[in-house]
Amino acid sequence: MKKIQSAEILCVGTELLLGDIVNTNAAYLSRKLAELGISVYHQSVVGDNPERLKKALFEAAGRCDLIITSGGLGPTYDDLTKETIAEFFGKSLVRNEEVLADITSYFAETGRIMTENNKKQADIPEGALVIKNDYGTAPGVIIEDEEREITAIMLPGPPRELEPMFLYEAMPYLMKRSGSVLVSRNINIFGMGESSVENILRPLMENASNPTIAPYCKEGEVRLRITAKAENSEKAYEMCSEVVEKILSTEVGAAVYGIDTDSIEAELVRRLKESGKTFASAESCTGGLIAKRITDISGSSAVFLGGCVTYANSAKEKLIGVCHDTLEKYGAVSEDVAIQMARGARKALGADIAISTTGIAGPDGGSPEKPVGTVWVGISSEKGDRAVLLRLSPRRERSYIRTLAASNALFLALGEI
Amino acid sequence: MKKIQSAEILCVGTELLLGDIVNTNAAYLSRKLAELGISVYHQSVVGDNPERLKKALFEAAGRCDLIITSGGLGPTYDDLTKETIAEFFGKSLVRNEEVLADITSYFAETGRIMTENNKKQADIPEGALVIKNDYGTAPGVIIEDEEREITAIMLPGPPRELEPMFLYEAMPYLMKRSGSVLVSRNINIFGMGESSVENILRPLMENASNPTIAPYCKEGEVRLRITAKAENSEKAYEMCSEVVEKILSTEVGAAVYGIDTDSIEAELVRRLKESGKTFASAESCTGGLIAKRITDISGSSAVFLGGCVTYANSAKEKLIGVCHDTLEKYGAVSEDVAIQMARGARKALGADIAISTTGIAGPDGGSPEKPVGTVWVGISSEKGDRAVLLRLSPRRERSYIRTLAASNALFLALGEI
Repeated sequence: MKKIQSAEILCVGTELLLGDIVNTNAAYLSRKLAELGISVYHQSVVGDNPERLKKALFEAAGRCDLIITSGGLGPTYDDLTKETIAEFFGKSLVRNEEVLADITSYFAETGRIMTENNKKQADIPEGALVIKNDYGTAPGVIIEDEEREITAIMLPGPPRELEPMFLYEAMPYLMKRSGSVLVSRNINIFGMGESSVENILRPLMENASNPTIAPYCKEGEVRLRITAKAENSEKAYEMCSEVVEKILSTEVGAAVYGIDTDSIEAELVRRLKESGKTFASAESCTGGLIAKRITDISGSSAVFLGGCVTYANSAKEKLIGVCHDTLEKYGAVSEDVAIQMARGARKALGADIAISTTGIAGPDGGSPEKPVGTVWVGISSEKGDRAVLLRLSPRRERSYIRTLAASNALFLALGEI
Repeated sequence: MKKIQSAEILCVGTELLLGDIVNTNAAYLSRKLAELGISVYHQSVVGDNPERLKKALFEAAGRCDLIITSGGLGPTYDDLTKETIAEFFGKSLVRNEEVLADITSYFAETGRIMTENNKKQADIPEGALVIKNDYGTAPGVIIEDEEREITAIMLPGPPRELEPMFLYEAMPYLMKRSGSVLVSRNINIFGMGESSVENILRPLMENASNPTIAPYCKEGEVRLRITAKAENSEKAYEMCSEVVEKILSTEVGAAVYGIDTDSIEAELVRRLKESGKTFASAESCTGGLIAKRITDISGSSAVFLGGCVTYANSAKEKLIGVCHDTLEKYGAVSEDVAIQMARGARKALGADIAISTTGIAGPDGGSPEKPVGTVWVGISSEKGDRAVLLRLSPRRERSYIRTLAASNALFLALGEI
């Protein structure tokens, strides 16, 4: 069959049309197809309605080489994606005993009762490939229509089933079809805007076709994803690494906090473990978000001793010994209080490094001298104690200001290791 | 023009096709249209490509009464939604001086420089209605094509612009077109599964057409949304309230933690304020998530004094005086430690009510006696001290276990007020 160059994503589910759930599958599949170098020009959503699904299939088949569907593979009477697509491709459904055994054992393991209608999930279009589902009961299906030169991949709707099935089964299948492998490396950047990153890297990015360089943004962070295609993964990894080195040698390098890491907190936990140092936090405006983000990381208990959420001034005094006079004189949102908080938490918890935050997250509480978005971050370690002033945008919402304050604090902590 | 019965959502943006962003607009608009009683049978996404957009418009126009687009209204050369749709409806674009003045003053206010290409955002199809954008520069547009009996509403792509514009402008417009108003009330339920809720309420739900009763689920919670349509909002509110009363009188009533509230933490903050009581937390396995969720609520500083994230055993001893012997004898994940943590935090912070969590969030750290998902929640208040054991599913991921543990603790705190 010919090389796959374009794909469409067709999500099936009335719950999507009612807006009950957000279509993360379309975004996930699109991102992965972009990595594979396959273009996506359309995403569509239809309900559990065979007529409309058939029309959508017909339209899509005229425009692309690969159709990926999500949803409608379940056991109930309104799950009709497999039946409709099999009919579209002129294939009959055949009970697959191996799949049936998998489904039966899934029910046994999870202690649930298998009803008769669950068996229909083991019906597979003749000649199709099966994608095993380790996280649910509905298997995925790959149909290759050599005459029309179209491939269809059907996946179940729940993201925790769809994502691993695509990543570990459909993606290798698509790579095999293209005769090459893809490897990605990620550069994580904090405190430099997307446009600044792009300005600096434009000469590198403009001519990048293999490896490709794609920027992704989230609050305060830019992630550069470098993806290389080669005949084997060692070669592809090497190609990526060359680009990584080039990028690190530019001005962007100074803002890089990690490579192939998930988040600032993951990098912080990793480096703390490596250096054998312990960590503590004292939070006012971030109200526990820093501790929450660190303890999101499994295994953080090896380095994170604990934190104090000292929201009220009385808590700042009682838990971590901030001076009453300092609070009176400079106010809670001040350099001195931030430093005393970090120092106090470090001492109270016996940690090597401590960080603190005190600021105005809004929407209320701002003043002309200390507008919403004013945040002091305190740092205490064997290197000494200090505080850094952040001036975050007062136009942004409370959650953004809290997230940015926490990210800045975690980023500053990295510098103390 | 005829009554609007069906709509399609057409999102424009290459970043959606690349999977760089998740399409929350389609979900938001679908949910709101469902509330309005307008059916959505298709959602589609195309890139910033006039040809494909025109084809998608043509297909949609043959299937529905209302097309809502998002994206492609910006100032750059590839933002072509307005131009393409105006052409589709045979309308020319006319510079609107009022809109131009709005855009100019937006740039002045935010201290940014207005370039020439920003002026094209003030070009409006002749005869169209303008939707003001208070959060950005691109206005929305409503085109009514009386001949084809189709209405098109164009909105900008960023959700923080699209959502208020739809809610405050497009929704009243659509209600006026239908000659009625919609009012919703929400019942928030914790600790009862969706299927149990539906089983109990089936007789009520099956015959519900006005008001409608729609369940929404999120981790451990069920929200019932009751929506009534009537000639005025007082009447609609009254119709909702009758259903709310009926639901509260069923077995479901006991699991209701709030009505027309956002979350357990919002309800907790509201009731603490009402009763003039203060609150504190001591967290081990939830690692700051409880404090974070409470301080997500603006104004929580009036009732939340602070919290201790006592991740290490040493922190439990130092910060909130948990006995070394108790930790040795029963382990950190135990009834006694949970109670001592809550009592210790309440005392250390001088709060009226304190809650604590200590458990195994996984994926590591489980044992046959204390598997992953074992969590003790401690409560201390003037009513006394106690602890409750949760056995959350060890098959679920760390973040789910932490979220459920925090929700249970917050829910239990409600009972102490």
